[in-house]
Amino acid sequence: MRSIDCNTQVCAVIGNPIAHSLSPAIHNAAYEFLDLNFVYVACPVEDVKGALAGMRAIKNFRGMSVTIPHKIEVMKYVDEIAAVDRNIGSINTVVHEQDKLIGLGTDGMGALKALVDNGVAIDGKNILMLGAGGVARAIAFTLALNTRLKELSLIDINENQLQELTTDLKAGTDAVIKSGGVSENTLSTEMEKADLIINCTPIGMHPNVDASLIPPGLFRPEQVVFDVVYTPLETKLLAEAKSCGLKTIPGVEMFINQAALQFEHFTGVDAPVGVMRRVVMEQLDHQS
Amino acid sequence: MRSIDCNTQVCAVIGNPIAHSLSPAIHNAAYEFLDLNFVYVACPVEDVKGALAGMRAIKNFRGMSVTIPHKIEVMKYVDEIAAVDRNIGSINTVVHEQDKLIGLGTDGMGALKALVDNGVAIDGKNILMLGAGGVARAIAFTLALNTRLKELSLIDINENQLQELTTDLKAGTDAVIKSGGVSENTLSTEMEKADLIINCTPIGMHPNVDASLIPPGLFRPEQVVFDVVYTPLETKLLAEAKSCGLKTIPGVEMFINQAALQFEHFTGVDAPVGVMRRVVMEQLDHQS
Repeated sequence: MRSIDCNTQVCAVIGNPIAHSLSPAIHNAAYEFLDLNFVYVACPVEDVKGALAGMRAIKNFRGMSVTIPHKIEVMKYVDEIAAVDRNIGSINTVVHEQDKLIGLGTDGMGALKALVDNGVAIDGKNILMLGAGGVARAIAFTLALNTRLKELSLIDINENQLQELTTDLKAGTDAVIKSGGVSENTLSTEMEKADLIINCTPIGMHPNVDASLIPPGLFRPEQVVFDVVYTPLETKLLAEAKSCGLKTIPGVEMFINQAALQFEHFTGVDAPVGVMRRVVMEQLDHQS
Repeated sequence: MRSIDCNTQVCAVIGNPIAHSLSPAIHNAAYEFLDLNFVYVACPVEDVKGALAGMRAIKNFRGMSVTIPHKIEVMKYVDEIAAVDRNIGSINTVVHEQDKLIGLGTDGMGALKALVDNGVAIDGKNILMLGAGGVARAIAFTLALNTRLKELSLIDINENQLQELTTDLKAGTDAVIKSGGVSENTLSTEMEKADLIINCTPIGMHPNVDASLIPPGLFRPEQVVFDVVYTPLETKLLAEAKSCGLKTIPGVEMFINQAALQFEHFTGVDAPVGVMRRVVMEQLDHQS
């Protein structure tokens, strides 16, 4: 690592727990690769308000990544949040600009970039989104506002959460939104017309790796499946879709992109995405 | 440098300005030498209260060095301060122990260690201290409480400051304290009986290097002179004392020891003083 001096800018991820965060490894490797005078640390935090007061007081505390369980509460302690992120209702990034703390989210744009970079067409397509929680909100708003998708169908077992996201999307975007509960019937109807399926639920995540929401019989080879889960790198959903001939986009691509976007907000420099991808892959290999 | 991960403990120096602090170089070199999972950054801070709130919230924000102008104000925001440090009236160190912030000073003990390590006898000796400001308070209380000095004479041009320290020392310690203003008469009388002279004023500090409070004609070869000023490494006072055959202790020894004591409070490990000294000397050479 580059040695630290009085001009070093400090960035951190806050969350609780934080013990398995990949962020220090990813960001520090990118700083080192570009010889930037930055350092990135992982901080276990319960008192979000205090942590943000500290960020405000420490003038070279340049950037903060915010993770579970603080992505919603942290919005109270920043000075500015873009309309889209207020609609999404959570942020994962705080940037210290002069005397202001600017909050923003990079999950939605990270997901969109993962799709675009992998050549997935979205304009004019039907999208089926599984789940209506925090990540779903970020991706749904980003796609609805930044693409010309044909129809976005939402499915969740949590009726309240589903209704809330549906209402908010209808109020905040011009996209065509449909929503329904999870039944075999809904799923098979939706799968018949879906071009792109996005899993935003934790189903299939380590250690419950032997679970998937979609029966393989519903896949069609021309569909694309994107799973936000990235532990394991290939979820059961992705593995089954791939074996049915579908194109698949692993969640790790979104994870890398959201970190790269944070990096760019913190440093003002294009992220060395290849370096960051390599570190993520090494770390995930190491953890598994 | 050791790579940073989710178990890395964070330390920092706060102050304003902080651009020329040697602390990041010193502490990081010591961490690296002992392969400790710590990192030390320099943080420009005006809002001390906010910075301490941040330290409290960030559970792995383990240690803080506090420098000008925050050494007094910071006392308001810690949970515990030893009686000696309350008497001194300023601290330069905050340690995060579980959920408590403990404030303490290492300047006084750093000075005492510099004297002891250099074989300077203090028990039964007359000490003449020039200056009654913050550093003088730390050293005077430390010597008065930890040695069996014969008499401590204080001289300062600031009558209020001098009176305050004299009163506080008489109330807080059993040492024999004398004090007077600065006149040629006082100085020559005091120099006649002094065994150890300690300069705690900024006289002689860069860029005003051609100044010294003591006319060389007053020196006796059996005296010892200690100057807390360490830029330049050899002040005019020390150079003249040395050329009159006196033993001299440079301020950099106190500076190194106060940092080493902070290091030990932060890490719980014996400081690699040789490594820290080498870094300080390199940095001071580099700055001069």
